Amino acid sequence: MKNLIVGQSGGPTSVINGSLAGVYYEAKKKGFDKVYGMVNGIEGLLQEHFIDLDEYFADKNNLELLKRTPSSFLGTCRFKLGSIKEHEETYEKVFKILDKHSIDSFIYIGGNDSMDTVESLSDYAKEKKKKQNFIGVPKTIDNDLPITDHCPGFGSACKYIATTLREVIQDNNCYGNTKPTIAVVEIMGRHAGWLTSASALAKDDSCDGVDAIYLPEIPFNMDSFVQETKELLKKKSSIVIAVSEGIKTEDDQFVCELKDANLLVDSFGHKELAGCAEILCKVLKEKLNVKTRAITLSTLQRAAAHLASKTDLEEAYNCGRKGADLAYRGESGKMVYMNRISSNPYKIKYEVFDDIHKIANIEKKIPLEWIDVDHNYVKQELVDYLRPLIQGEVKQIYKDGIPQHIVLKK
Amino acid sequence: MKNLIVGQSGGPTSVINGSLAGVYYEAKKKGFDKVYGMVNGIEGLLQEHFIDLDEYFADKNNLELLKRTPSSFLGTCRFKLGSIKEHEETYEKVFKILDKHSIDSFIYIGGNDSMDTVESLSDYAKEKKKKQNFIGVPKTIDNDLPITDHCPGFGSACKYIATTLREVIQDNNCYGNTKPTIAVVEIMGRHAGWLTSASALAKDDSCDGVDAIYLPEIPFNMDSFVQETKELLKKKSSIVIAVSEGIKTEDDQFVCELKDANLLVDSFGHKELAGCAEILCKVLKEKLNVKTRAITLSTLQRAAAHLASKTDLEEAYNCGRKGADLAYRGESGKMVYMNRISSNPYKIKYEVFDDIHKIANIEKKIPLEWIDVDHNYVKQELVDYLRPLIQGEVKQIYKDGIPQHIVLKK
Repeated sequence: MKNLIVGQSGGPTSVINGSLAGVYYEAKKKGFDKVYGMVNGIEGLLQEHFIDLDEYFADKNNLELLKRTPSSFLGTCRFKLGSIKEHEETYEKVFKILDKHSIDSFIYIGGNDSMDTVESLSDYAKEKKKKQNFIGVPKTIDNDLPITDHCPGFGSACKYIATTLREVIQDNNCYGNTKPTIAVVEIMGRHAGWLTSASALAKDDSCDGVDAIYLPEIPFNMDSFVQETKELLKKKSSIVIAVSEGIKTEDDQFVCELKDANLLVDSFGHKELAGCAEILCKVLKEKLNVKTRAITLSTLQRAAAHLASKTDLEEAYNCGRKGADLAYRGESGKMVYMNRISSNPYKIKYEVFDDIHKIANIEKKIPLEWIDVDHNYVKQELVDYLRPLIQGEVKQIYKDGIPQHIVLKK
Repeated sequence: MKNLIVGQSGGPTSVINGSLAGVYYEAKKKGFDKVYGMVNGIEGLLQEHFIDLDEYFADKNNLELLKRTPSSFLGTCRFKLGSIKEHEETYEKVFKILDKHSIDSFIYIGGNDSMDTVESLSDYAKEKKKKQNFIGVPKTIDNDLPITDHCPGFGSACKYIATTLREVIQDNNCYGNTKPTIAVVEIMGRHAGWLTSASALAKDDSCDGVDAIYLPEIPFNMDSFVQETKELLKKKSSIVIAVSEGIKTEDDQFVCELKDANLLVDSFGHKELAGCAEILCKVLKEKLNVKTRAITLSTLQRAAAHLASKTDLEEAYNCGRKGADLAYRGESGKMVYMNRISSNPYKIKYEVFDDIHKIANIEKKIPLEWIDVDHNYVKQELVDYLRPLIQGEVKQIYKDGIPQHIVLKK
């Protein structure tokens, strides 16, 4: 008789619950007795705050609702375990709790920071000859995890961004040539421009697409930006510009910091970014005397389950299943990843990465050869990479006009 | 042989093209020979910039795409004709152009300002014994037009707001009780809180809904706001607050003006509002020392055709058809409106309002008896009023993962 515990960590996505559904489904199928969910990740585990997932998901309808519920069903945390050396008592506590509840396997669904947790726990277990094994299932809208071709959660965010940008372009275009109008749309992504690059997907026969894309991979120059926008205005009067929240000047300063240096720092040392689009709009208004509008996609881009990509949700689910399979087989310190066999036809193989040390805390950026620096745009290779990830729609379960979700009982 | 011209004016909506589709369909059915579309409203008409709609919509597939395309297909304007007395030459020019192209009927799809244009042209035609007739078809996401039970465009914006708010609530809730987090969501609506009130629709068995709703109909007090939020935090740690962009203090000052008095004024004298959520977040962060996030729905709420309400789109289409019918029958200076026969079952009758003078430039606000001032929320009557408007989904026509639109050729 084996028991498993699963947790969710870091920023939520539209389909992170798809992975949870996959873990639950496969774990039960493989014969795990109890499948527990830690409430608010490792932080909840340390307080023995977890639930028996059968309580919710023995009912298959609820599992379908779970797949369509954005954010982390189990709740999340940004708790850092710290080094084994300095925080041995925390590590001991984790294993004491796991032992107490006869838990054999631990699956963590998360991004870079969560893989760090999986790595540390797995290392500790090996060092101290503990019986438990630890598996990571990737998740991040930012797509900045190395090794995996892309991350579950990213495709749905791309689909939201592309759809929304196309609607924003239509909206911005409504004054035709009668009034120059510039919309600057700010998209998430601290150091990697993957999400912002998805704005390129808005373009098709009936849509010009965005007019420029500014990515954090390329140093940002305010004078060039103004000049480039001025050039665009000579050709057309409705301009939509996509910018990453994380664009930085040549001297490595976040553009959003140009407004206000008093930034908050979260518990992982990330600076909180906001207001970059507003700053750019202010500059354009001043320099070019045009109507501008700053649009910030904020958490909508990671929570818009109503626009989830079917491909993405299926992949999230499959990564969860693969994770439970690995856990069952006693593997530890490993992460499920996706290996792209081909783009056309699109084919993914779910594989296992053995050396999680190489994953944790490394950020994958857009390869520079996929960026068209001269035109502030992305190259076709990047569009070809992104396109398969947004294919297919997830049929929502509507009730009274709004998609239904499932939530933890209080 | 009769010809008709139709235009779109004011801010776009998700379904204003549904009304255009309805006008075109009914006008052709009734036997109008040419159905022209003015490009960028009356401003385009004055430059003889219009198109023959057969060119696009003789193909029925394109008419279906039109219904699913947000923003104004024909382009819009905010051109004010001015008084007949002072701008007689402009009025004469309009009629000269209409005569030149043998146009008998004029339909304008728009909000308060557009009805003002319909009224003035109709008055002028009657005064000068011109043959043309002028009909208004209502449109506004703000729902602030009087007489009509509600406006086409409003229901889809409500569906977007309710769906998005539910997703934001899920997202904001992801830290559970581990970290107090407040999201302040800013929703459109200059003087009427209709759109903001739609946030109440997010609530159901599985969703607590928003925790407070601040409407422009009720004077806003910053100290009370902080105190009320403090009280909320005693009960729960994830708080989502919906605020109208147009909330005003007791001394009639926009909250968004508290930051910056240098507001722009558009050609109708409306002040441009922005940043109210940010100001409130800043105050809460300072006074309560909590994590806050300002989310501004911006133009997304009026452009999200992918979340259009089927009920709303059908009504927009039917209002357009009714407008073409009135035009065919030679009526003038009249507006189509919707009369609610019952809410349960929901039943609407399309009627004609004779005295357009009573419509133009009057803003309909939320009746005070529908607002729960003591709890910063709305009463059940208002929810019952809103609920039917968001029912049903419009099947999108996806191509390559993104809903397709149709746009004017260049």
